[in-house]
Amino acid sequence: MSSKLVIEKLSGKNFEEFIKLMEVFANFEKLNPPDKQAKSRLKKDVLSKNPKYEAYLGKVGNKYVGYVIFFMTYASFIALPTLFLEDLFVLEEYRKKGIGQKMLDFCMKFAKERNCGRVDLNVLDWNVNAINFYKKNNFKFINWELYRLEKKQIMEYGKH
Amino acid sequence: MSSKLVIEKLSGKNFEEFIKLMEVFANFEKLNPPDKQAKSRLKKDVLSKNPKYEAYLGKVGNKYVGYVIFFMTYASFIALPTLFLEDLFVLEEYRKKGIGQKMLDFCMKFAKERNCGRVDLNVLDWNVNAINFYKKNNFKFINWELYRLEKKQIMEYGKH
Repeated sequence: MSSKLVIEKLSGKNFEEFIKLMEVFANFEKLNPPDKQAKSRLKKDVLSKNPKYEAYLGKVGNKYVGYVIFFMTYASFIALPTLFLEDLFVLEEYRKKGIGQKMLDFCMKFAKERNCGRVDLNVLDWNVNAINFYKKNNFKFINWELYRLEKKQIMEYGKH
Repeated sequence: MSSKLVIEKLSGKNFEEFIKLMEVFANFEKLNPPDKQAKSRLKKDVLSKNPKYEAYLGKVGNKYVGYVIFFMTYASFIALPTLFLEDLFVLEEYRKKGIGQKMLDFCMKFAKERNCGRVDLNVLDWNVNAINFYKKNNFKFINWELYRLEKKQIMEYGKH
């Protein structure tokens, strides 16, 4: 089954399928899916001359079953690029078939080719299956805590 | 005192001062400072046509007292750029004078101008002063755990 996986770069042609997968993933993560404006930005931002992210879809037969999004960040003390894995998702009914593994392997080729010093990702702390998957692949938990300002707080910053 | 702070973009001219500050910061964080090769990459990566990071130094009189490094990442579900604050450091003897605050304010101008949906950063879990500083500025703790492959594991990935 997993041997039939084909990995396609995100393009204008498979963009609607990509959005459908993102919506399923957002629902799984209990987060809001992209709204209409966000969908339009997602398309522009990946198809532009200087893409803001890179994305690939996994396909089994005619069915799109998963996707990955990543981009390059930078680790200052080692002065090497980091491949940051923003999303890696496989539809529930296609899990446990090695598809996620093949999609991670695919991303790791880029990490090697681009001489990355790190591959980083954030996992929701309750997502035990994801945590086990990354641990199995030698990812280590890092005791750096994530702090965030959201859009609303950014707009209001410094106003009081 | 803090009213005399001048913020300079990192350039060939102040690069050695930048490296000195990074070394003090690495020591404070109990991490390895940039080695000779890393210093050379840091210079190339920021002065190139497509810089891999952006950096600014804080100066009081003739003394360089702190620095910030940031770059843009991307939040997929909201489809907006994130300003990721990689490092923000002020020399210990210049703290509690509002310098860190002015340097954060400076970064926030970019976050607003570039229509960022988030400002993200990672804090070492024992760095209580930093955590309090960001909390005071409305940053919220996010329950996403960081997992990482380091360079050695990247090179060895898939080999066994």
